[in-house]
Amino acid sequence: MSEYNYGISIHGGAGTIDKSLMTNEKELAYTHALQTAIDAGYEVLESGKSAIKAVTAAVCELENSPLFNAGRGAVFNSLGQHEMDASIMDGKTLHAGAIAAVRNVKNPVYLANLVREHSDHVLLVGDGALEFAEKFKVDIETDAYFHTDQRYSQWQKIKDSDDFQLDHTSDKKYLGTVGAVALDKNGNLAAATSTGGMTNKKFGRIGDSPLIGLGNYANNNTCAVSCTGSGEFLMRAVTAYDISCLMEYKGLSLQKAAEYSILNRLTALGGDGGVVTIDRQGSISMVFNCDGMYRGSRNQNHSEVAIYK
Amino acid sequence: MSEYNYGISIHGGAGTIDKSLMTNEKELAYTHALQTAIDAGYEVLESGKSAIKAVTAAVCELENSPLFNAGRGAVFNSLGQHEMDASIMDGKTLHAGAIAAVRNVKNPVYLANLVREHSDHVLLVGDGALEFAEKFKVDIETDAYFHTDQRYSQWQKIKDSDDFQLDHTSDKKYLGTVGAVALDKNGNLAAATSTGGMTNKKFGRIGDSPLIGLGNYANNNTCAVSCTGSGEFLMRAVTAYDISCLMEYKGLSLQKAAEYSILNRLTALGGDGGVVTIDRQGSISMVFNCDGMYRGSRNQNHSEVAIYK
Repeated sequence: MSEYNYGISIHGGAGTIDKSLMTNEKELAYTHALQTAIDAGYEVLESGKSAIKAVTAAVCELENSPLFNAGRGAVFNSLGQHEMDASIMDGKTLHAGAIAAVRNVKNPVYLANLVREHSDHVLLVGDGALEFAEKFKVDIETDAYFHTDQRYSQWQKIKDSDDFQLDHTSDKKYLGTVGAVALDKNGNLAAATSTGGMTNKKFGRIGDSPLIGLGNYANNNTCAVSCTGSGEFLMRAVTAYDISCLMEYKGLSLQKAAEYSILNRLTALGGDGGVVTIDRQGSISMVFNCDGMYRGSRNQNHSEVAIYK
Repeated sequence: MSEYNYGISIHGGAGTIDKSLMTNEKELAYTHALQTAIDAGYEVLESGKSAIKAVTAAVCELENSPLFNAGRGAVFNSLGQHEMDASIMDGKTLHAGAIAAVRNVKNPVYLANLVREHSDHVLLVGDGALEFAEKFKVDIETDAYFHTDQRYSQWQKIKDSDDFQLDHTSDKKYLGTVGAVALDKNGNLAAATSTGGMTNKKFGRIGDSPLIGLGNYANNNTCAVSCTGSGEFLMRAVTAYDISCLMEYKGLSLQKAAEYSILNRLTALGGDGGVVTIDRQGSISMVFNCDGMYRGSRNQNHSEVAIYK
């Protein structure tokens, strides 16, 4: 099966990314961080390892960067804490793992993958998920590790209100999540997604990112999908699995399926966001209905990183 | 639109229901409880009220019965607590609400519906969901209210092991959840699902029941679905939305779609369970791949309650 055109695509969130507020320095920092994550995942694929390993490597890089709303750069919730969600799915076996509302875990996607590998469950939340993490001696970081001045100031601005806000941008329209999808040399697909959720979120709110079929999905028969955007709309639209069903049941190509799901379904509901997707032939589609999406992809023929439309 | 053939279908869990262990008395108790719940929902529909109100009424009845693994009859988790999950979805607007890992709330489905109506979120978990419940003065019950001797003895048998068990039956194959789907006189669909999860569950495990598209889904363009069974398999199969997609994208009838999703997809993964479904024409399908499912349905022409195949 080594004729498969292996490849990877990643995102670092989507939304109203105002170019006039973006400095050259900032743009360079984002571009560099995206490229580092893509290359980390691509090298895993090149060496013949699995798509699961590739998406884990890429998402860990994004989680380790303070630039993106996941892992180290996770936003503050209403209590001034960092509560993170992540999920991962193997397209070959349809095995999936996810964690939600978890604090202090350095790499939430790594923990999600341990749930996939070492439990009979798919989704673990809160203190229970942390107890599971302790069994596997997962890397834990202090609250200080997750403190970034930018996120803190985002939170300070709205913390005494009932507002909550999706990450990114000057106003309320930057939708932070990170994710990766990959096809490996054995023809197996995988998808992973990770997020810190919304600034000032409360009531134990969970979005689409840790939910299989909603923010993340992989199936060797169709495609791998990682979503980013207004989580509640992606949930109600069951976006990740919708794209897979449009391919499997309606016979659409990956590009047409991703476009229909984002530009028609999600848009009709009033949701903002986007997806990175890859199919079993190695075709990559990155589709979004807002101003920009931090994104990139790489296969044997092509490598790109982009922010705006 | 009053020509619509309104109706309701409910379930109280599925699995290996061993007829030889079932007394006449017990069977009568289950049958009576199911009929009470169906009638409660049906009366709401008959009076011209919404499908959302009908599924809420039916599921509240099932939650108030100690016989089913939801609300009052919820199983014990590994800490001897009752942690409950529920979800509800409106097929007209695709608005949805859900709560998970919540303790002491008398009617979890009612709280899920408050999330749908009064928040910008879809899913709230744990203490955060309870804090939201307090805002609305939702009925809270003591731990004693949720204590049933049968559940306690189920838990005692396995509490010192790493085992966990799906509710019901002599062995480990009774899969407890309750749910309802309805079509109202205005042609609107709704679905609701509620559960206590698995006996001795730990690590903050959440199953399919509170997850939109997985254990519960409603869309006026297709159907309303409530699932019960081995949650992790229903999650990986994205069962509820799969049935909707088979109708919308592949053009299958409700019955064919439910059969394909349960008898082919779920079974191929190794999962046990079933669904109750209704479409916009009022057709009802109840499909399961195990020995039995506590179930029932009612419309203008027909009323039934059944347990075995």
